[in-house]
Amino acid sequence: MSTLYISPGACSLAAHIVVRELDLPIQIEKVALRTPDSPIHQINPLGRVPALQLEEGALLTENSAILPFLADQKPGTSLFAEAGSIERAQIQSWLGYLSAEIHTASFRPINRPERYCADESAHPGIRAQGQVQLLKAFEHIERHLSDRQWLVGERYTIADAYLGVFASWLGRLGGPFDQLQAVKRVRDAWAARPAVQAALSAEGLR
Amino acid sequence: MSTLYISPGACSLAAHIVVRELDLPIQIEKVALRTPDSPIHQINPLGRVPALQLEEGALLTENSAILPFLADQKPGTSLFAEAGSIERAQIQSWLGYLSAEIHTASFRPINRPERYCADESAHPGIRAQGQVQLLKAFEHIERHLSDRQWLVGERYTIADAYLGVFASWLGRLGGPFDQLQAVKRVRDAWAARPAVQAALSAEGLR
Repeated sequence: MSTLYISPGACSLAAHIVVRELDLPIQIEKVALRTPDSPIHQINPLGRVPALQLEEGALLTENSAILPFLADQKPGTSLFAEAGSIERAQIQSWLGYLSAEIHTASFRPINRPERYCADESAHPGIRAQGQVQLLKAFEHIERHLSDRQWLVGERYTIADAYLGVFASWLGRLGGPFDQLQAVKRVRDAWAARPAVQAALSAEGLR
Repeated sequence: MSTLYISPGACSLAAHIVVRELDLPIQIEKVALRTPDSPIHQINPLGRVPALQLEEGALLTENSAILPFLADQKPGTSLFAEAGSIERAQIQSWLGYLSAEIHTASFRPINRPERYCADESAHPGIRAQGQVQLLKAFEHIERHLSDRQWLVGERYTIADAYLGVFASWLGRLGGPFDQLQAVKRVRDAWAARPAVQAALSAEGLR
């Protein structure tokens, strides 16, 4: 059996949700992050989650690859779209945007400023600018969602499963992030899904 | 006809190369970046390249979505792999890693430190740390390539087309980056490909 390594509340929640949405025969294994003796370092040399250890031996990393791979295990569901279709490319584009612009370019400077400057005195300024970039990056999503129910094709897809995770992280920030009404609407619809509730419960988050 | 918007030497070079590798009927249009009156702002609200304006009306952004979409226009070539396959997921994983860890997390702080801190006095420290992160991120690729010809499946894929772009950017940095022998080997093999040479010539880069 394949194993998905996750850490409670991390971005691996998206892959965990998709496993439950599709009822895939994949074992979920919780690991600690940021501790040198965590078993994740034996699995993934980058020490990160999500990491999908396939029964066949290969290790898959990056949500932008794991989410499509999981969805492709049950072709034809509403969570994804056929190879070569514009809808599939649009879903893949949002996965890329969420990974690069929301997570890597915005949340990371807020949460890990030491990755951006060795001098600690610069960290408050880096965290503050991270919030500026995060708001800009989310405003692009807000505009897109203003006349749509979900990111692509008027149905919940793996892109929304991923967006819901980052939208749920905004609750900690408050301020201008509370004005993102369309993002909040999607987050609430995401949070109401049985697969999301099951994943949150299993991660000890509700 | 669909149009791919690029800027000479930017990461859009990867998509330009794949259009030429597959001889796709897509028009290549050069635009300026970082100038408020560039036509790219009318096309892509994010003002970025690559942006693929499809004949059908949709706009695709993000290399991690555009490269797979282009490859899927000619299914069955050696540049990509079948939906649901582990190889396809591995190629998609490298696209995600290159976009998030190499471009967004490492080159961007080096090239655009103002996105990470409003205080200019912090910019030299941010640029320096960007080089530290870039080296770490490339060392992971170097280890992976030490016993392989290409990133996935012992053949040139869209992941290598994308890697070649960033590997070619290392030439400007020198120092410890010159030690990445396997990365340099792939960059040289990439640079020798007719499609790469044609794209570089068309962008005025050789």
